Amino acid sequence: MASKKLRVGLVGTGRIGRVHAQTLKQRVPEVELVTVTDVNQASAQQCADQFNIPHVAKDLAEILSDKSIDAVVICSSTDTHAPFISQAAQAGKHIFCEKPIAANLQIIDQALDVVKKAGVSLMIGFNRRFDPNHARIKQAIEGGEIGTPHLLHIISRDPAPPPIEYVKVSGGMFFDMTIHDFDMVRFLLGEVEEVYAAAGVMVDPAIGAAGDIDTAVITLKFKNGAIGTIDNSRKAVYGYDQRVEVFGSKGSAKSENIYPDAVTLSTAETVRQGLPLNFFMDRYLTSYQNELAAFAQAVANGKQPPVTGADGRAPVVMAMAAMKSVKDNRPVKLSEIE
Amino acid sequence: MASKKLRVGLVGTGRIGRVHAQTLKQRVPEVELVTVTDVNQASAQQCADQFNIPHVAKDLAEILSDKSIDAVVICSSTDTHAPFISQAAQAGKHIFCEKPIAANLQIIDQALDVVKKAGVSLMIGFNRRFDPNHARIKQAIEGGEIGTPHLLHIISRDPAPPPIEYVKVSGGMFFDMTIHDFDMVRFLLGEVEEVYAAAGVMVDPAIGAAGDIDTAVITLKFKNGAIGTIDNSRKAVYGYDQRVEVFGSKGSAKSENIYPDAVTLSTAETVRQGLPLNFFMDRYLTSYQNELAAFAQAVANGKQPPVTGADGRAPVVMAMAAMKSVKDNRPVKLSEIE
Amino acid sequence: MASKKLRVGLVGTGRIGRVHAQTLKQRVPEVELVTVTDVNQASAQQCADQFNIPHVAKDLAEILSDKSIDAVVICSSTDTHAPFISQAAQAGKHIFCEKPIAANLQIIDQALDVVKKAGVSLMIGFNRRFDPNHARIKQAIEGGEIGTPHLLHIISRDPAPPPIEYVKVSGGMFFDMTIHDFDMVRFLLGEVEEVYAAAGVMVDPAIGAAGDIDTAVITLKFKNGAIGTIDNSRKAVYGYDQRVEVFGSKGSAKSENIYPDAVTLSTAETVRQGLPLNFFMDRYLTSYQNELAAFAQAVANGKQPPVTGADGRAPVVMAMAAMKSVKDNRPVKLSEIE
Amino acid sequence: MASKKLRVGLVGTGRIGRVHAQTLKQRVPEVELVTVTDVNQASAQQCADQFNIPHVAKDLAEILSDKSIDAVVICSSTDTHAPFISQAAQAGKHIFCEKPIAANLQIIDQALDVVKKAGVSLMIGFNRRFDPNHARIKQAIEGGEIGTPHLLHIISRDPAPPPIEYVKVSGGMFFDMTIHDFDMVRFLLGEVEEVYAAAGVMVDPAIGAAGDIDTAVITLKFKNGAIGTIDNSRKAVYGYDQRVEVFGSKGSAKSENIYPDAVTLSTAETVRQGLPLNFFMDRYLTSYQNELAAFAQAVANGKQPPVTGADGRAPVVMAMAAMKSVKDNRPVKLSEIE
Repeated sequence: MASKKLRVGLVGTGRIGRVHAQTLKQRVPEVELVTVTDVNQASAQQCADQFNIPHVAKDLAEILSDKSIDAVVICSSTDTHAPFISQAAQAGKHIFCEKPIAANLQIIDQALDVVKKAGVSLMIGFNRRFDPNHARIKQAIEGGEIGTPHLLHIISRDPAPPPIEYVKVSGGMFFDMTIHDFDMVRFLLGEVEEVYAAAGVMVDPAIGAAGDIDTAVITLKFKNGAIGTIDNSRKAVYGYDQRVEVFGSKGSAKSENIYPDAVTLSTAETVRQGLPLNFFMDRYLTSYQNELAAFAQAVANGKQPPVTGADGRAPVVMAMAAMKSVKDNRPVKLSEIE
Repeated sequence: MASKKLRVGLVGTGRIGRVHAQTLKQRVPEVELVTVTDVNQASAQQCADQFNIPHVAKDLAEILSDKSIDAVVICSSTDTHAPFISQAAQAGKHIFCEKPIAANLQIIDQALDVVKKAGVSLMIGFNRRFDPNHARIKQAIEGGEIGTPHLLHIISRDPAPPPIEYVKVSGGMFFDMTIHDFDMVRFLLGEVEEVYAAAGVMVDPAIGAAGDIDTAVITLKFKNGAIGTIDNSRKAVYGYDQRVEVFGSKGSAKSENIYPDAVTLSTAETVRQGLPLNFFMDRYLTSYQNELAAFAQAVANGKQPPVTGADGRAPVVMAMAAMKSVKDNRPVKLSEIE
Repeated sequence: MASKKLRVGLVGTGRIGRVHAQTLKQRVPEVELVTVTDVNQASAQQCADQFNIPHVAKDLAEILSDKSIDAVVICSSTDTHAPFISQAAQAGKHIFCEKPIAANLQIIDQALDVVKKAGVSLMIGFNRRFDPNHARIKQAIEGGEIGTPHLLHIISRDPAPPPIEYVKVSGGMFFDMTIHDFDMVRFLLGEVEEVYAAAGVMVDPAIGAAGDIDTAVITLKFKNGAIGTIDNSRKAVYGYDQRVEVFGSKGSAKSENIYPDAVTLSTAETVRQGLPLNFFMDRYLTSYQNELAAFAQAVANGKQPPVTGADGRAPVVMAMAAMKSVKDNRPVKLSEIE
Repeated sequence: MASKKLRVGLVGTGRIGRVHAQTLKQRVPEVELVTVTDVNQASAQQCADQFNIPHVAKDLAEILSDKSIDAVVICSSTDTHAPFISQAAQAGKHIFCEKPIAANLQIIDQALDVVKKAGVSLMIGFNRRFDPNHARIKQAIEGGEIGTPHLLHIISRDPAPPPIEYVKVSGGMFFDMTIHDFDMVRFLLGEVEEVYAAAGVMVDPAIGAAGDIDTAVITLKFKNGAIGTIDNSRKAVYGYDQRVEVFGSKGSAKSENIYPDAVTLSTAETVRQGLPLNFFMDRYLTSYQNELAAFAQAVANGKQPPVTGADGRAPVVMAMAAMKSVKDNRPVKLSEIE
């Protein structure tokens, strides 16, 4: 490890911020996490204490004014993503930002424009691309193991819905949850031309009362001619259900859920195993480490990060098209959204 | 087995006719298969020789005029189904008829009307309902094991497309292949209100040239609010792919493919097993036995067979709606078809 | 099927006799089962009625005196096997006989000598060799897929012990149950040189009181240098447990149990499937069909049947060695038994 | 984390020492790793640099003389374990020591005696007890989920043999490799009374030339009446094979290997997945973290560590008995060794 470590500051020490802080401190040797901040300074201090981070900054501006810092990791609330990206870019910092950039295309485009002019690197936190299961399926496609892809299916179900207060401000299931799946389909099969979404309120009427849906099946027509579906539910009682299947001219690749152990019990009643991993941090632990390492390596080598600003923008367009599809009950072309 | 056996004649000794003849002779003790016929008399004779069937009739009329015969099994070409049903009903015979009844609703309705007036039993050969996998999933739903169904997915892929000459006269993939899946979704979750079909020609351009599609994803909205999909391909290189998953408020039930053995080989390259069963007669062997036994028992007990004429009609409506959906690229309500 | 069918008589219409009668009538087109007999004539008549067998003989002698009969299938009680083999051989009939030939080597050798002199074919009913799982593992070994075999393990557990009256006359678990496994290890890896058996009474003290054991682990040293184990229990509460693993220089082949369906249920408590097949006739259904077809084909082609008299004798030697090993608590060479 | 952290020094910065150093620094918040040492000071310095450890001591004595240090972790070569245990105990330090304590019972007993007199805590590094798979099986046994245990089987195969130079000084496979399995059987089913070992040289003749064996099956008779086997091979070409099955009166619990992903590929040739984890550090990563946390918690709470000195001694006795069993080709009681 002779090369200089990437010096990083982190803004936003909530749930995902803590995940990234711990990962950066403990599992990404290419990075030195030197400072954190949060609008809640007590939270920032607690995070620093918890993971032995040397400094707490009073705000992002303090971090950006530190010439020794190479990059920022933005984990603050969604509404701050675009302005923080712009500020960090103007300060010449490389940027890792949580998804989504924003729920408004004009705001996204402005922020991406600032980044482009500043010539800094920007990576969006679509961590699932770095999960070993999804990565293996991607590899099977790219290596020609399954021939030309014809069909794709994603099962993506949460173990339980978020609090109803969160649902109300989340922008809707498509923006909050399906956004990961919209990214995944692009990662696996490329650009989508048209979506058709069938959705309902099946888990909790309160979600419907809040104007959102909790269950959906989205059909995707890809530009390359393939067809796919995304299956979402806010509540799979057996745990976090994250599976992908891609079927092609030479075969199929499909992933199963991840379990805490590989033990089967056979009794007079059943042959059974325990439930799959329930919590996203357990399920996607490796992916968080891999994505931050990929960011650090891209910056160190002066290469474009593997998930770009454009990759952050595209799923937002897809979510908008899916919402329109539900509203109009018809297939919606992405070109209608632009 | 003190009760009198059901005396049966079979018409149509092609591929599925042979399956049923063998099943009736060897695996359904409730039935005595006493005569067969076919427009190709040599085929009928060969079938009789092969399975030790005592008599070959020169045509259906000869069978129907035999007072000792209780029921007919119709396995002849699709265009003969409706007229043969009517003739058999008018002769007072109970009827087991292969799917589909016809591709025309008026013709179907006329035949069903004749059956109704004659007061005979009619069962349509949707054998997959009698497969242990599908039956177990049905049981899980009906027994409340998975709560209220929210989502359903069927994967139904053939190992290879039929000859192009067959494709040309098949009525299209939805009528020839998906018809089984349309029945299965009704069997599992009840009536469908609307379908949206995304389809393409991905397996063989000759199928497209013949005016058909070979790959499709059909989204179904059920009257009970659930949402489902059917995934069809004419060609899964690894074998006959027949899987179902139903997800509900209390869990999910899903089936895997059936394999000729349960052996895994681990070598320096992979951990692998052989391919799933490739041929529909192997994969669905048990279902053929179960469905004919169910027919015999229903007739013996004077009960309505488990797959009625109405069950034969409904998937035809769904196939028509799916074809319209592909043509118009929009969701189509089944009520538009009637 | 232009060739003449093998005309067969069956003696012994108890449980396994009925399995063979049904199999011969319904699933082995090479055979015509023309007559059955049993010391219990009512049982023989019932069997004939059940499976539509044209004739009931008053005893084996009547069958043997029928010049039109080519072969006999011996399913009567174990003590009759050797004398019936000798009588049938002297009458010039080919013979399929259930295992074991006898529990006494002198008696076995006399019967095999008569067979040899008569020049008829003799096949012993070690059906498991014809099971698709075991056959696939054999194929993996013979095809070099796993290199040179080093280790072998058989799990062979019954779902429940037989009635205690049966235990008392069975000759002991090694003769009654392990005999199949002794044959299987020879089928897979060849001749055994030495056995060491650790055994106990863990399932039911009444079995111990009857002088038998109900649980055992037998270590086998093969002549080729490999080492193996057989794990037996009279009672696996979850069903019939029949698994094999062979490990070699280039990999391993292992089999899993067979299930009535391939459905998994995921609920808030577990991810579960149903129990494996419980009954030997369900689990080994295919093997019974395959073994009788193999017998008929060997006779028709004038070839040695795939399980010879010597194959019937060897497992008896192994059972004797295992019993001696338990008694003496030491490894016992098979050469000590001869 | 208000409570004071356990201050720890580590001796021996070879392969396993690095594993523990990294684990202690990154994954065990209850511990502060403050110093390391090694006879190779450059190695110690490299380890300190790699994991950000503040100090490198010139030898164990320097660590032991530091009053601020609570405990030592001994990862040095096996011959130093017993003397280092004694020295650390006499200095009043709690001790975590890698297995085995020694290959000589007298030396072990002397060291344990010193520990006892000093009143410090000693834990032996049988990490596999802390693996989620093995722990789940233990839980199934203790929770009564499988009733009274009757049979146990361990498959424990390395992906490749160690260098032949290592084999020569390792004390033999039973001491070097099976020692973990001897501990595991005690962990799961308690004390063993007698062992019978069948072994051979099947992987590499050079191992035989060095006086060792590379393949073995060990039969164990437990004091509680259960019977078990351990299957060892130095070379499983498909990876690290670590499986356990315990069968009891109410069912069985069995574990499968751990895979880097849960993806299956189906092609025209096979249905396959990748190989299981190959490297012990990947396979048992979680167990290392869990065991060191358990040590720290036991010390902090003044409780006996979960793997005691007596637990370190017992498998050595079993290895001696297994060696004697191979030499004499007979079952050997552990009481013969003492």
